[in-house]
Amino acid sequence: MEKIAIFPGTFDPFTVGHESVVNRAQGLFDKIFIAVGNNSSKDALFSLDERKEFINQVFSGNLNIEVVHYEGLTIDFCKEVNANYILRGLRTSSDFEYERAIAQVNKSMYEDIETVFFLTMPEHTPINSSIVRDIIRHGGDVRNFIPTKMNIKK
Amino acid sequence: MEKIAIFPGTFDPFTVGHESVVNRAQGLFDKIFIAVGNNSSKDALFSLDERKEFINQVFSGNLNIEVVHYEGLTIDFCKEVNANYILRGLRTSSDFEYERAIAQVNKSMYEDIETVFFLTMPEHTPINSSIVRDIIRHGGDVRNFIPTKMNIKK
Amino acid sequence: MEKIAIFPGTFDPFTVGHESVVNRAQGLFDKIFIAVGNNSSKDALFSLDERKEFINQVFSGNLNIEVVHYEGLTIDFCKEVNANYILRGLRTSSDFEYERAIAQVNKSMYEDIETVFFLTMPEHTPINSSIVRDIIRHGGDVRNFIPTKMNIKK
Amino acid sequence: MEKIAIFPGTFDPFTVGHESVVNRAQGLFDKIFIAVGNNSSKDALFSLDERKEFINQVFSGNLNIEVVHYEGLTIDFCKEVNANYILRGLRTSSDFEYERAIAQVNKSMYEDIETVFFLTMPEHTPINSSIVRDIIRHGGDVRNFIPTKMNIKK
Amino acid sequence: MEKIAIFPGTFDPFTVGHESVVNRAQGLFDKIFIAVGNNSSKDALFSLDERKEFINQVFSGNLNIEVVHYEGLTIDFCKEVNANYILRGLRTSSDFEYERAIAQVNKSMYEDIETVFFLTMPEHTPINSSIVRDIIRHGGDVRNFIPTKMNIKK
Amino acid sequence: MEKIAIFPGTFDPFTVGHESVVNRAQGLFDKIFIAVGNNSSKDALFSLDERKEFINQVFSGNLNIEVVHYEGLTIDFCKEVNANYILRGLRTSSDFEYERAIAQVNKSMYEDIETVFFLTMPEHTPINSSIVRDIIRHGGDVRNFIPTKMNIKK
Repeated sequence: MEKIAIFPGTFDPFTVGHESVVNRAQGLFDKIFIAVGNNSSKDALFSLDERKEFINQVFSGNLNIEVVHYEGLTIDFCKEVNANYILRGLRTSSDFEYERAIAQVNKSMYEDIETVFFLTMPEHTPINSSIVRDIIRHGGDVRNFIPTKMNIKK
Repeated sequence: MEKIAIFPGTFDPFTVGHESVVNRAQGLFDKIFIAVGNNSSKDALFSLDERKEFINQVFSGNLNIEVVHYEGLTIDFCKEVNANYILRGLRTSSDFEYERAIAQVNKSMYEDIETVFFLTMPEHTPINSSIVRDIIRHGGDVRNFIPTKMNIKK
Repeated sequence: MEKIAIFPGTFDPFTVGHESVVNRAQGLFDKIFIAVGNNSSKDALFSLDERKEFINQVFSGNLNIEVVHYEGLTIDFCKEVNANYILRGLRTSSDFEYERAIAQVNKSMYEDIETVFFLTMPEHTPINSSIVRDIIRHGGDVRNFIPTKMNIKK
Repeated sequence: MEKIAIFPGTFDPFTVGHESVVNRAQGLFDKIFIAVGNNSSKDALFSLDERKEFINQVFSGNLNIEVVHYEGLTIDFCKEVNANYILRGLRTSSDFEYERAIAQVNKSMYEDIETVFFLTMPEHTPINSSIVRDIIRHGGDVRNFIPTKMNIKK
Repeated sequence: MEKIAIFPGTFDPFTVGHESVVNRAQGLFDKIFIAVGNNSSKDALFSLDERKEFINQVFSGNLNIEVVHYEGLTIDFCKEVNANYILRGLRTSSDFEYERAIAQVNKSMYEDIETVFFLTMPEHTPINSSIVRDIIRHGGDVRNFIPTKMNIKK
Repeated sequence: MEKIAIFPGTFDPFTVGHESVVNRAQGLFDKIFIAVGNNSSKDALFSLDERKEFINQVFSGNLNIEVVHYEGLTIDFCKEVNANYILRGLRTSSDFEYERAIAQVNKSMYEDIETVFFLTMPEHTPINSSIVRDIIRHGGDVRNFIPTKMNIKK
């Protein structure tokens, strides 16, 4: 059976931490859908199209990785693309409790789905999209926190 | 002295986790007020009346349990109904730190109040109202996460 | 039905934190057994008899509280004394995860048992028996950390 | 080299916990700037001017402490006032993970900056500005949670 | 490239939680070595041979799973059997911090290794080998906590 | 007043994480005593003399840093050398809860002492002495985890 995973997130914006998780996980799956969800909260910085475009810059040419967006429940999107795995990165223990709740509820709603976790690298642990957004908003330099191939102009 | 507890919460909506805490705690108290507070934040799904109605469906006929709503400080409501105990469920360690702060501040403002904690059952640990709301908003099936007697139509 | 609780622990030694939990919880129960367990680990400081004697100094004359010791599983001792509640204090979030595992396993082995948690007071949060033992071993003054009525001579 | 620290925060409002950190840390620094940041979120209770005025009431006459406000990145403000240390209080382990991310990102953007942490006192651990705001909004008495010299009229 | 994982642990004894992780992970790997490590600490209950025998009872006939034991560093054993993945289950946030340290150190010593985490199921979260050992020592019934096919006689 | 700190620990062995904390903290203090405590537990790998010798290799020639050992309570040693600050590194949130208890108890026993925390750098977060010991025992290469100037032959 093909091993298909989705890597869901808001990715506002995609960071070096996300990039590293995808790169290290791709040996395990035949295909990874990087699935950009809508950020319902008010403080979105980049549009859905910008966010997808950034990620495409990083993985263009990589045939096993496809950038898509989705609405609705994550498990419904999994069924739609025949994914049996949800890929997530773990940074901290507060991440963990949130991720565990989501993953266990997903499993109880759709038994065939498994959430598989990779750790961020130690040097990426403090980096998350919310901090990166905040730095961009204040005009700071985020080049160390986003993939080299990503070209953010804000 | 009568043992009166309030079980305060936003209950947007009431879940199987809440139901289980009340059921297991009721042997310890002469009366439990399930006290529905206003959800000040923007993302309320159900109105105060709907939320009370749902809980009444679950405990109707149970004379030791009364569903009420309150505004203002929780300890002021405790004084109003002569409650000396605040009942709370604990799911995770991040819950715990938040609950501890609230409970210790309540105690320092009103020395006669004690907060008593019950654990959620293991199978209810991933379930919280925020996740249930999210599933309802996306049209998912939440019947496993809310009490059998509750009749949500959204 | 009578509300009987056991408050199990090693109590090597009993601290002001333990005392405060018992004092605040006793309004809720008809009887509390303070149940001293054997400390299997190597670093016990006080003998079982000393530990029981210390606790008796604190609660002597209080008819609702009885100091006992037990061996074997906590739930077996609960059955023996007809206790339906296990009383525990919670200090920190690392306490919490340990306590949750024990309580949930107890519940799954004996459905009629409920573990009820009280918080320690903020000023008692850093105090635990292990730190107190360490101070005693190094000749420090622990009078602020143990009940006033306890008379430790080491 | 002069030891200059900034103590950044929203301070909406300043609490006894904040006061205690500054008092205990001031022996370590030649100067502490209490740097009031803008609270971008919707639920600000006090204006920037009110918040600064409250803190000035607490430390007036203390020449080593200066109350300022700043916008933009914290590290940019550090450079502006030649501060090499950021002072922060730690209350709980969930505080810790958030503080660690911010501090490590600051360090990676500006190598000469160090974040130095002091603990809150045990009795101040449950107190944070968000809880204090909530009590004020509901007309409760917060005198035990704010510095004696602070004169809040709301 | 073949996807080979080791699932290292002390397994003293193997629990339903371990069984569930292996069952859910085996679709992702071509082969899983369940690698029983020596328990250096004093309180081992079962011998290495007993522990291996128990696990063989659970997975006998499953050609993709092999029960082995190892000494020395986990990464050295990975190299020996050409494993590029270490499989681990995550139960709680305190588990997480320990697992993260081990996994990140392994990665820094052997860049080709990735640790992949699966969550335990909610109902298995409170169960760990240490609690199971304790119950067995006190003569309690652990049949709900170990795999159905495992035949423990102590 | 002179700013004197002790940096207490078992240091079995001293790691790059410890080295980094001392290097970054030394600008804040006139003198730092690196105070090696006895490791009472069974699994000490290096003798007290070896541990002191290793640390001296790292800081030899640095007049503001002195390597000493001590027995008894940390606060008694602080009084002996006129230290008003205890310096500690923080890695993870489970570290934090332990450190907080120790620091708050020290403060309540000796009001003039303050514990000051520095964070470890992200890349050092997974490294602790216990993991390093374990690698050494199994013959692994720990050169990335200990200071460059340290010469461990085991």
